[in-house]
Amino acid sequence: MQKPYVIGVDIGAQTAKIGIVNVHGNVIEQTAIRSNSTADVEEFVDDLCEAIIKLLPEEISLKQIKAIGIGAPNANYYTGMIENASNLKWGSKTKQIPLVEMLSKKIDISSVMTNDANAAAIGEMTYGATKGMKNFIMITLGTGIGSGIVVDGRILYGHDGFAGELGHVTMVRGSNARLCNCGRTGCLETYASAIGVARSAREILETTDSKSLLRNLPVASITSKDVFEAAIKGDDIAKEIFNITGKILGEVFANFVAFSSPEAIVLFGGLTKAGNLIYKPIVEHLNLNLLPIWQGKIRVLLSKLKESNAAILGAGALAWGLQEIEN
Amino acid sequence: MQKPYVIGVDIGAQTAKIGIVNVHGNVIEQTAIRSNSTADVEEFVDDLCEAIIKLLPEEISLKQIKAIGIGAPNANYYTGMIENASNLKWGSKTKQIPLVEMLSKKIDISSVMTNDANAAAIGEMTYGATKGMKNFIMITLGTGIGSGIVVDGRILYGHDGFAGELGHVTMVRGSNARLCNCGRTGCLETYASAIGVARSAREILETTDSKSLLRNLPVASITSKDVFEAAIKGDDIAKEIFNITGKILGEVFANFVAFSSPEAIVLFGGLTKAGNLIYKPIVEHLNLNLLPIWQGKIRVLLSKLKESNAAILGAGALAWGLQEIEN
Repeated sequence: MQKPYVIGVDIGAQTAKIGIVNVHGNVIEQTAIRSNSTADVEEFVDDLCEAIIKLLPEEISLKQIKAIGIGAPNANYYTGMIENASNLKWGSKTKQIPLVEMLSKKIDISSVMTNDANAAAIGEMTYGATKGMKNFIMITLGTGIGSGIVVDGRILYGHDGFAGELGHVTMVRGSNARLCNCGRTGCLETYASAIGVARSAREILETTDSKSLLRNLPVASITSKDVFEAAIKGDDIAKEIFNITGKILGEVFANFVAFSSPEAIVLFGGLTKAGNLIYKPIVEHLNLNLLPIWQGKIRVLLSKLKESNAAILGAGALAWGLQEIEN
Repeated sequence: MQKPYVIGVDIGAQTAKIGIVNVHGNVIEQTAIRSNSTADVEEFVDDLCEAIIKLLPEEISLKQIKAIGIGAPNANYYTGMIENASNLKWGSKTKQIPLVEMLSKKIDISSVMTNDANAAAIGEMTYGATKGMKNFIMITLGTGIGSGIVVDGRILYGHDGFAGELGHVTMVRGSNARLCNCGRTGCLETYASAIGVARSAREILETTDSKSLLRNLPVASITSKDVFEAAIKGDDIAKEIFNITGKILGEVFANFVAFSSPEAIVLFGGLTKAGNLIYKPIVEHLNLNLLPIWQGKIRVLLSKLKESNAAILGAGALAWGLQEIEN
């Protein structure tokens, strides 16, 4: 029997969003639970199963669900484990959590899991800006930077399942490089994520005397949103911060292109709300840094999926792709 | 009928090497022609066909040849063209040469072509150090730096066929960055190829007063081989040059791993003859720069193929993989 629904789950540090997705890619029911209310993963899985069962409307039974697709930080597609996820309350730097196996013990539906950025890339490829594209790179510009690399229509997982950690490509070397959460220095995400933008703002405010609307705010708590709001009011420092950020992204994207020669780079996440403030310098510096064969040929796209349900759709699309091993 | 032989062709700037390869991966006959004796590609293709026919021993007929595999600079696997190859006498920065099509008009055997670094990677995967590996990166450290990226057992070609230009990843930015043949500055190959090593030597000799055996040589003509010979005699400057080169390679390899998470990085080409002088700093700085999840886990291997016939074997292996469309 062809099963007409999948469930997409998007696990983040604060919440887990759950949606029922039909064959047309519509999220027909949606809910969310807290993912940080317990440090006990068993308890979290219980909450998740309960929420899934509750979410099913009367006319849809568990038997009509083809599979559960999950997007989660540090998730490994190959092993079905969440590995070393220090940003999840029930995870840790050293823990391996067999989430797929745990779920399958509690609920009789096949599950499949990938990391959140890969889920977003699958969603984009299935329903969004890269529909039909076989080679592209998805970059999520949020608190950190995530990436999903698509090669020949499939997510690049690499030898161990962890390919596509482009937020941790080293962009700046030497003693001035910014410290990253990963323990290393100079990672792309320390410069070009939402937090990177805020750090750039603080650096400039603390090391120069330039006038800026941002000086009206307590410097320690400046966010990328504050920088955006100052920039649209015409603040030169704020605009310059987006220029610097876009330049770094354009430069590093040129290196990514030299690696996998994608048709497009798709941007997703909070920082893309800055629109042309960041988009223009990205495209400019990408083309300044590309090998001649690629200049003017690599498209930079903005995600067409709503941030609120992109990961659910992506996780759902992953579930649709799962081989039907059950009868 | 199962055809028991393929022909592997390795086109370089000076010579084209041609070999007959049997099913066991042995090069049973081998020859070479000059690839720079004419600027007319028709003439070159005539020479190539003539050499192939001549190479066949009496007991092997053209009908027993399954296919011709070709490795060439700037070759595009998708289109069968050599594109913008300014280092080939009959190529140019703007010319598109349909070599596969031209060959098929003159000789009745299917042909398939890929770039030289990809051919080396295919050879390595079929017969060499990465036999059986599904995910690795081949780096050729010659006059320039080439790369062949293998993902899930297949060469990564990308959208346009030109993926894997890792020699042109930007390593140094700013006004001090070295000028590259590609017209840009700071490319990896300006630092970590044979020519990069020679440039580093000249830079150090010209900007410091340090004692070195290399000072006995005319500075303008120093080669990477000179640096190697001084290093094995214990010359500190020469050893430091290999340390610097290995450090740059280790640093950039860590970024490559963040992209495709390979099981191994395989090194091939002239510079690998420096052995531990370059191998040790590569491994050291790779591990210093990797994300914790990969530290100590990425193998750095030296090619197991003889440089003289690696590309013939690789091109041959490409030919073996060609779908048999003829009867």
